[in-house]
Amino acid sequence: MNIAFIGLGQMGVPMARNLLRAGHALRIFDVVRAPVEALAAEGAVAAGSASAAAQGCELAFTMLPSSPQVREVYLSAGGLIAALGPEIALVDCSTIDPLTAREVAAAALARGIALADAPVSGGTAGAQAATLTFMVGATAALFERIKPVLAQMGRNVIHCGESGTGQTAKICNNLLLAISMIGVCEAMSLGSALGIDAKVLSDIINTSSGRCWSSDTYNPVPGIMPNVPAAREYQGGFATRLMLKDLGLATEAARRAGQGVMLGAVAQQLYQLAQQQGLGDLDFSAIFNLYRPR
Amino acid sequence: MNIAFIGLGQMGVPMARNLLRAGHALRIFDVVRAPVEALAAEGAVAAGSASAAAQGCELAFTMLPSSPQVREVYLSAGGLIAALGPEIALVDCSTIDPLTAREVAAAALARGIALADAPVSGGTAGAQAATLTFMVGATAALFERIKPVLAQMGRNVIHCGESGTGQTAKICNNLLLAISMIGVCEAMSLGSALGIDAKVLSDIINTSSGRCWSSDTYNPVPGIMPNVPAAREYQGGFATRLMLKDLGLATEAARRAGQGVMLGAVAQQLYQLAQQQGLGDLDFSAIFNLYRPR
Amino acid sequence: MNIAFIGLGQMGVPMARNLLRAGHALRIFDVVRAPVEALAAEGAVAAGSASAAAQGCELAFTMLPSSPQVREVYLSAGGLIAALGPEIALVDCSTIDPLTAREVAAAALARGIALADAPVSGGTAGAQAATLTFMVGATAALFERIKPVLAQMGRNVIHCGESGTGQTAKICNNLLLAISMIGVCEAMSLGSALGIDAKVLSDIINTSSGRCWSSDTYNPVPGIMPNVPAAREYQGGFATRLMLKDLGLATEAARRAGQGVMLGAVAQQLYQLAQQQGLGDLDFSAIFNLYRPR
Amino acid sequence: MNIAFIGLGQMGVPMARNLLRAGHALRIFDVVRAPVEALAAEGAVAAGSASAAAQGCELAFTMLPSSPQVREVYLSAGGLIAALGPEIALVDCSTIDPLTAREVAAAALARGIALADAPVSGGTAGAQAATLTFMVGATAALFERIKPVLAQMGRNVIHCGESGTGQTAKICNNLLLAISMIGVCEAMSLGSALGIDAKVLSDIINTSSGRCWSSDTYNPVPGIMPNVPAAREYQGGFATRLMLKDLGLATEAARRAGQGVMLGAVAQQLYQLAQQQGLGDLDFSAIFNLYRPR
Repeated sequence: MNIAFIGLGQMGVPMARNLLRAGHALRIFDVVRAPVEALAAEGAVAAGSASAAAQGCELAFTMLPSSPQVREVYLSAGGLIAALGPEIALVDCSTIDPLTAREVAAAALARGIALADAPVSGGTAGAQAATLTFMVGATAALFERIKPVLAQMGRNVIHCGESGTGQTAKICNNLLLAISMIGVCEAMSLGSALGIDAKVLSDIINTSSGRCWSSDTYNPVPGIMPNVPAAREYQGGFATRLMLKDLGLATEAARRAGQGVMLGAVAQQLYQLAQQQGLGDLDFSAIFNLYRPR
Repeated sequence: MNIAFIGLGQMGVPMARNLLRAGHALRIFDVVRAPVEALAAEGAVAAGSASAAAQGCELAFTMLPSSPQVREVYLSAGGLIAALGPEIALVDCSTIDPLTAREVAAAALARGIALADAPVSGGTAGAQAATLTFMVGATAALFERIKPVLAQMGRNVIHCGESGTGQTAKICNNLLLAISMIGVCEAMSLGSALGIDAKVLSDIINTSSGRCWSSDTYNPVPGIMPNVPAAREYQGGFATRLMLKDLGLATEAARRAGQGVMLGAVAQQLYQLAQQQGLGDLDFSAIFNLYRPR
Repeated sequence: MNIAFIGLGQMGVPMARNLLRAGHALRIFDVVRAPVEALAAEGAVAAGSASAAAQGCELAFTMLPSSPQVREVYLSAGGLIAALGPEIALVDCSTIDPLTAREVAAAALARGIALADAPVSGGTAGAQAATLTFMVGATAALFERIKPVLAQMGRNVIHCGESGTGQTAKICNNLLLAISMIGVCEAMSLGSALGIDAKVLSDIINTSSGRCWSSDTYNPVPGIMPNVPAAREYQGGFATRLMLKDLGLATEAARRAGQGVMLGAVAQQLYQLAQQQGLGDLDFSAIFNLYRPR
Repeated sequence: MNIAFIGLGQMGVPMARNLLRAGHALRIFDVVRAPVEALAAEGAVAAGSASAAAQGCELAFTMLPSSPQVREVYLSAGGLIAALGPEIALVDCSTIDPLTAREVAAAALARGIALADAPVSGGTAGAQAATLTFMVGATAALFERIKPVLAQMGRNVIHCGESGTGQTAKICNNLLLAISMIGVCEAMSLGSALGIDAKVLSDIINTSSGRCWSSDTYNPVPGIMPNVPAAREYQGGFATRLMLKDLGLATEAARRAGQGVMLGAVAQQLYQLAQQQGLGDLDFSAIFNLYRPR
């Protein structure tokens, strides 16, 4: 298939590479030259703009840092929506706020173009191994059309509902994830302060009502589990600054919707503090450092 | 075995009954007459005081509402520790703060008496079905001695470490449980406000990093799961006022230990608000009501 | 002087009227007809658009609900900046986020037009009595130019610094105001719960280190002060929904600036809850209702 | 007058010295020898116990670190209440929880002894200069009896109501103080992050609705005011660890009373974090350090 891939950051490069490996004719664009040249050397065709990349393709993916770039690439005068027609389907894999996602999809629809929001979870490791999860907001028809290609970049491809629901699913999950992670940090550090063995406590929690992914799969306390960021000084994983970004999207979406999210707002402030204290580039489980003695 | 059971509230009665059914000679005491008479009719022997009940027994259990009653029953002039000798082992199943638990155990030890803290989880349903979880703080020797009898009242009997660690395990788990539960309420209500189907969102969360017991086993949103309190207007289950009590124990223990528990403190205040708004006797998942439009 | 006034809501109408009374030739515009007709009957000249109103004036004021309207009026194709030249000075009295304020001022400057942000405090009563406070972000030259006219609508005209600082001053003050107000509610309700007379406690606070405007000038507890919203069931004053709006601006600006505002975020959530519970149209001191028994 | 003073810490020594200077015959006791010897050298008579010091006096003051010491000195077998009779009046200047204060007063009353709670504010500087504020919980008769002597150690002597209301007034004021102080830190640091001059912003706040003691008298931002702890690297003043203690008393009293104090609970956690980060011995305005870049 003729496919365009626009936005070649840490996530975009391995995702695009998986499409190349699957045999697609890939046209690429990014304002940064290095990843473009790397992928061109592997067989992709570099284009001079997002619109030029997408011209003549059946499918175009974008993977951009945040809403302003998404607006620029899709909605500007020379952007994708103005330049393309109904023959292409667009898939935005960026993590942005659901309202912007819906707005962009509506603008595309007004020109007869189908656009899906399909943010991912799984991190760079998942992007490389093609084990990402895609949360897709799209019509049923569009979902069926793009699912086989998404499946070449990920393991789980979930249809969440109409436009914007992919973004909604991601930020709601990550809101809960941040809260749970901090909850595990508090429960574990309180236990240690009160004298219970950390391994014993985590075993109890993992078979009790406190059980959660942040405890049983991704425990933030060093010494509890191997092969998690806590076991390697919080290197790798899902960066604190990215969690902070997602919490910003969630609380801002909540504000616009008039929906209270008290623990979410406090979690955002704690991640803000963690970032201020220099933990921004470490895995988000490094927020455990806010809870231990210095 | 000759066993005393002191404290016959909603939990104590079915626990004591399970000991009777297991064939033990049971001596009982409570200041309230009705449950004493009910169990006496089933074969237990009523005594005039806690000490009188425990006299001559190999094992005595207490199940009391909170620290002041525990202090009174164990530490007062005519209390258990003053009245008994090293031949008995004492097991306090009350949920109290770990510092008081350690203090009482130390007072017992000073008279040569072994005392375990063994708070439970599982609620009245678990007490009746003998499926409780016991979290036990005790020496290894005492744990081995009491484990077979605890197993007649529960399904899981966990050794958490020395004195006070049973209480610590319980309040740390419940701290995390409260935080997770509120986190699920926020994620689910935000999702609904943004237009994603609640069942779809919970399915995504339950297979993603937001997965937790409060979402996949005890979801607080009506219509997601059958057989949970949310499916029956939050009747039954673990009452909001009891969760509020446990959060009070956790944050107070944290304060004394100089340990920060920001989300825990906020969760306590939210449960305080829930109680103030009339939800105190409903299951603790009813805190979802704070998040939906009225 | 020839002056335009654009945006005739609850604040705009009395402000414009004060300019009329001061003898200015006033040209007005709003999309809603009723206030336009009312002011036209008092001598103002109605125009068909914001740009038409401002044409030929020395000064134009805008008083709009929020950022999107400000963007539309100033930045759209037929908007003020495109339609006007350097002979006019523009003053935006809307309360919006400081970043948008700076962006609009920069767009004006690019066309040689001086633009000040001048949000107000004092409410509709202050607008009517011409006792508003204006917090002005502008160059020194522009400030001197507009100050005499602002003084015809208000009592205090404060120069806060360059573009955006008027907005910054307002949202920072209101952030602190919201926090203090909730702090007074908590201190007073805790005092009452512990049995101290509310009047005695407020007298002590007002001569001690807890002293603040929310306690000594605008006490939220009924029965403490006359002539405050608490004395008239929280009618009038500064509405909860407007405080919620300002807290949203403050926390969103903080987020973009990477600045932590923990109590501010919690205050925002409490005002969100107050709004959800039906207090949105009452004065912002009505948040006291979250703290008393029902 | 024959007066006993028990508890000679940093506050007790200068308070006792002011009584000596006023010409009273002073009998003193503390478990630490150094301050006892210092005051004995100035004319006080050292006694071997609290009860021995109070024997034969008309008035006895206590100034102790926290509730357990107050319980020990007043309620133990050889304590003040057991050893003394109705001829003495007792005044506890310690800061403790209101419930313990009431309990001790009730125990004294049961033996016919009048006891007042009279916690102070003003710090060691106020103790030395005899400018303390006393918040007194006592009957009207007892208040009149002790007021003249309190006035020799302080400038303001306030009758707050019956037993415990002195403590209540103090912890409610300090709850509000902590919240306001953090509010000022957030408003000022947000303003700086958004580019307004700190001095300009504090001037605006101090004449607006954000005005409070923490801003206009004790500003936490270095460079705004002279002669405040912020001007001397937060040395002196009211220590963070003492504010943390008072917040613990306030939130624990709130918990027992079933009263919500959301911002107070969050403020306590922020002070806990400040202490954990090494700010415990600095003035409580040093919490500003949590809000600035490192």
